[in-house]
Amino acid sequence: MNTEKNIKTLIVKKPLKLDCGKTIKDFPIAYETYGSLNSKKDNAILVFHALTGDQFVTGINPITNKEGWWSYAVGPDKAIDTNKYFVICSNVIGGCMGSYGPSHKDPDQKIFGTNFPVITINDMVNAQCNLLDHFGIDKLFSITGGSMGGMQVLQFISNFPDKSKTVIPIATTSSHSAQNIAFNELGRQAITADSNWKDGNYTSNETNPGKGLAVARMAAHITYLSKKGLQEKFGRKLQEREDLKFGFDADFQIESYLRYQGSVFVDRFDANSYLYITRAMDYFDLAKKFNGNLSQAFINTKAKFFIISFTSDWLYPTQENKDIVIALNSIGADVGFVEIESDKGHDSFLLDVPDFLSAFKNFLDKSYEEN
Amino acid sequence: MNTEKNIKTLIVKKPLKLDCGKTIKDFPIAYETYGSLNSKKDNAILVFHALTGDQFVTGINPITNKEGWWSYAVGPDKAIDTNKYFVICSNVIGGCMGSYGPSHKDPDQKIFGTNFPVITINDMVNAQCNLLDHFGIDKLFSITGGSMGGMQVLQFISNFPDKSKTVIPIATTSSHSAQNIAFNELGRQAITADSNWKDGNYTSNETNPGKGLAVARMAAHITYLSKKGLQEKFGRKLQEREDLKFGFDADFQIESYLRYQGSVFVDRFDANSYLYITRAMDYFDLAKKFNGNLSQAFINTKAKFFIISFTSDWLYPTQENKDIVIALNSIGADVGFVEIESDKGHDSFLLDVPDFLSAFKNFLDKSYEEN
Repeated sequence: MNTEKNIKTLIVKKPLKLDCGKTIKDFPIAYETYGSLNSKKDNAILVFHALTGDQFVTGINPITNKEGWWSYAVGPDKAIDTNKYFVICSNVIGGCMGSYGPSHKDPDQKIFGTNFPVITINDMVNAQCNLLDHFGIDKLFSITGGSMGGMQVLQFISNFPDKSKTVIPIATTSSHSAQNIAFNELGRQAITADSNWKDGNYTSNETNPGKGLAVARMAAHITYLSKKGLQEKFGRKLQEREDLKFGFDADFQIESYLRYQGSVFVDRFDANSYLYITRAMDYFDLAKKFNGNLSQAFINTKAKFFIISFTSDWLYPTQENKDIVIALNSIGADVGFVEIESDKGHDSFLLDVPDFLSAFKNFLDKSYEEN
Repeated sequence: MNTEKNIKTLIVKKPLKLDCGKTIKDFPIAYETYGSLNSKKDNAILVFHALTGDQFVTGINPITNKEGWWSYAVGPDKAIDTNKYFVICSNVIGGCMGSYGPSHKDPDQKIFGTNFPVITINDMVNAQCNLLDHFGIDKLFSITGGSMGGMQVLQFISNFPDKSKTVIPIATTSSHSAQNIAFNELGRQAITADSNWKDGNYTSNETNPGKGLAVARMAAHITYLSKKGLQEKFGRKLQEREDLKFGFDADFQIESYLRYQGSVFVDRFDANSYLYITRAMDYFDLAKKFNGNLSQAFINTKAKFFIISFTSDWLYPTQENKDIVIALNSIGADVGFVEIESDKGHDSFLLDVPDFLSAFKNFLDKSYEEN
């Protein structure tokens, strides 16, 4: 992987006090942009990525040589039309695609590993806000993202109520539930159970806890798909065989599929980053600072919200998205909401779901015309 | 653990041809009984256990020193009233509580490990049917069990249509879904990823893949509980601390709970047995032999069925239980069905759910009065 030459990086000079109490400065934020910033600088959309995403939203990701994670939604004439909008996306801090994270070196040139500070969704968006200064953007046209990207959307507009005209959280929650935490903890336990993890110091001897990380990915992957979608796609179909083999190889296509998902993930993701980012998600509870009153998180913004959920998403179900709508309604905020019919589960926001993509596009383009 | 003296064992002399093609004979079935067989021998109930259960249904399990897995349902005056009924339960073959399994030795005195034959639900019930001959029981009063126990109930009455007067499958399915297989495969991958697993030969050097098995248990445990139940019980409650610690210890009670569930499981269960039993569940597809027509599996029985599901069970949801009812209705079988309201998820069948326990008791006692 020729990583460095393909990664644009902003070095943030300004000190950032993290929620854990530590202060970081002179740290890198790796980012990518699509489309062009217009002269009024009023066409910028900041996209936030999910747990395993990165800054390479669309087109071919130069590191993995695969399509960017939001290629269905972002590009010329797509929902986020890059002929019209200037899209910015950065790798979250704690990540492993160039932004400051556990695989970076501390001032003594030792790889951080688990000595990297535990970061939060709040820290992530506070770090990313520096990109606005970098581009000289006073106010974004929109902020959007699904899953953990949606959490960052909610946190960003709460922290910076005047910094975006529109706000589109997708398939997300304002607070990680016990079941969400349970699945993330399962993933962390799978990683730390791998004898190659070595308390996070695996980078020093060039082995890595790939088996544990693959198991963590498989667990998460199941939660991204719906029971019905899995049944329709895989059911009990066998993997290149006439009948059961009475062994422990992958007899079923679903087994083979999961193993594949685990193995390709390991090639592109860092196990310690997986620990840090899932921790940030579990710590996310936007209403906590407001004594449990979620409405207060949005009291200072005049932004126009559009919230999107999916019928078969059981990770961040419609009700958790509706709870955000209810909180916004109760303070008279400008808020739209749509629940999209889809059997593709939580992953619907990443896939070719026409009703979703057209609702997304229409909201953006209509709002932009009102500019 | 003083295992051997507390385990009653029947050595099955009769050869049993397994679905994989191999034949076993002179193999042990470990069993337990509760209550007394009456002189007419018409009060026996065969209970089938779930994935991680064993023959110690109620009272103190002499091996673990904990309550038996179905103590809420089985005992004097309980749903299965041991003052009235004679309860038999045996450890499934492939298991690790005395019945023939991968921790046993092959004829060359070498521990089987993954050389043990892959077994099926069909093999399990064919093995257990030998207990009827052992006790001289011509016809059982009832067969029952939840989860994988329910699968055995369905398979048993299909194989032996005249061997039980009543049939009570609980929280189960007639065919493992893609999502079910996915979660089981996740567990197997967690076990085999553990460097102590050593292709299943861990018993030879007294290390065992406890970390991997614990991860497998955590994954499964999440599927046994409902999202709502987890939220009500744990939510975001912290574990013996005032606030988040910004580290990777268990900050949340749900994390601590899962870790505990993983660690206690390892003390009582064998990792290879976990592989074999989950494989048997994944292979379960009762209609397969009947060209997909589930009704045909029950065409030869006159037994009276009572099927029970739980509203918040997302592992074997009500619809999959109803599919069994529909198959029975279509051949005019005698079948009752109840969906019990509970937020305790799949585990409801093991817990103190009064509506379930009273429906269960009423069906049994009314059917027995008709004897």
